[in-house]
Amino acid sequence: MAIQQFPSKLLEEAVFEFSKLPGIGEKTALRLVLHLLKQESVDIKKFGQTLQKLADDIVYCRQCGNISDTELCGICASEKRDNALVCVVENIRDVLAVESTHQFNGTFNVLGAVISPIDGIGPADLNLSKLEERIKDGEVQEIILALSSTLEGDTTNFYIYKRFKNFPVKITSLAKGIAIGNELEYTDEITLGQSIVNRTPFHPG
Amino acid sequence: MAIQQFPSKLLEEAVFEFSKLPGIGEKTALRLVLHLLKQESVDIKKFGQTLQKLADDIVYCRQCGNISDTELCGICASEKRDNALVCVVENIRDVLAVESTHQFNGTFNVLGAVISPIDGIGPADLNLSKLEERIKDGEVQEIILALSSTLEGDTTNFYIYKRFKNFPVKITSLAKGIAIGNELEYTDEITLGQSIVNRTPFHPG
Repeated sequence: MAIQQFPSKLLEEAVFEFSKLPGIGEKTALRLVLHLLKQESVDIKKFGQTLQKLADDIVYCRQCGNISDTELCGICASEKRDNALVCVVENIRDVLAVESTHQFNGTFNVLGAVISPIDGIGPADLNLSKLEERIKDGEVQEIILALSSTLEGDTTNFYIYKRFKNFPVKITSLAKGIAIGNELEYTDEITLGQSIVNRTPFHPG
Repeated sequence: MAIQQFPSKLLEEAVFEFSKLPGIGEKTALRLVLHLLKQESVDIKKFGQTLQKLADDIVYCRQCGNISDTELCGICASEKRDNALVCVVENIRDVLAVESTHQFNGTFNVLGAVISPIDGIGPADLNLSKLEERIKDGEVQEIILALSSTLEGDTTNFYIYKRFKNFPVKITSLAKGIAIGNELEYTDEITLGQSIVNRTPFHPG
């Protein structure tokens, strides 16, 4: 049921803005705005200012394409990170996921998308030119394809592999196998099969 | 899992603002902000400006307490509405719910809360003084108690009844019974019992 008549134009506008967000309908948007209205006026203003600053000042790292406050993001600029090792991910959420493992000491290349013909996204839409430049400059020794294990991810992996296979760069991808903590009987047969094919030497302790 | 390190302070601030909203955790907030960042910069700014305007300019109707752009809200100001009939509701969502029925031609009194000792909300927190004034002035002939059928709602109904029962005003409450379209066998026994006690004359056709 659409809300038919708002008692206030300002309220309606705010609800409209929230309801444009993914997964938020008009009723949820109204709930959020009414919650905001219970806060101090200065806090609502701060929310508004934060969004305006976001619009004005956010930049994307010129090397990896990650969201950043500076021209070169903190990861690319860090001397502790290995610039010769590049993890190729779809978006910034994946950067955060990889960073949270504390197992990766290289840099990133954020594609911004994966190839998906049904959504009209082709190879030209991927952020790869800067990576190609870095590979041609001999700066990169290995790229790790860290895309989701979906049809689109696999397609994109294959495209990147074809594009860079004749360059002097090692191309690897994430290991696939049973998830840690998962029970064998509930693991799907494709994953289980792959984990048998790609079995690794056992290290006790 | 909390997000440990944001690549951008601006991003972190925006995620923090969204994650203060009810039902929105840090991960959802990040999804929303990243969605916003895919929009045009001017649209993000407009969102921010809308919130600032909301903080600056929203007012509450001096008669009914509803959210409004003007000192007297559109419903209270309308000559087509019956000022002698007042529907007492908890909040503005309930105003919208009643309005959407197109069955009510009176005005409202928005309490802003219901009595809930566990949340520290007592009778003094209810917006009732203006209604009392209107009743004393002889302006109101009937108040309809339209609160949720919960312990808190019933308590509040009873409090309002006690407060106004000696004034020359008729006090009614919403009819309770089986919901239209509901099957009898799935109706709870308390509601069904009430709907038998309060049965109404049958009007064919």
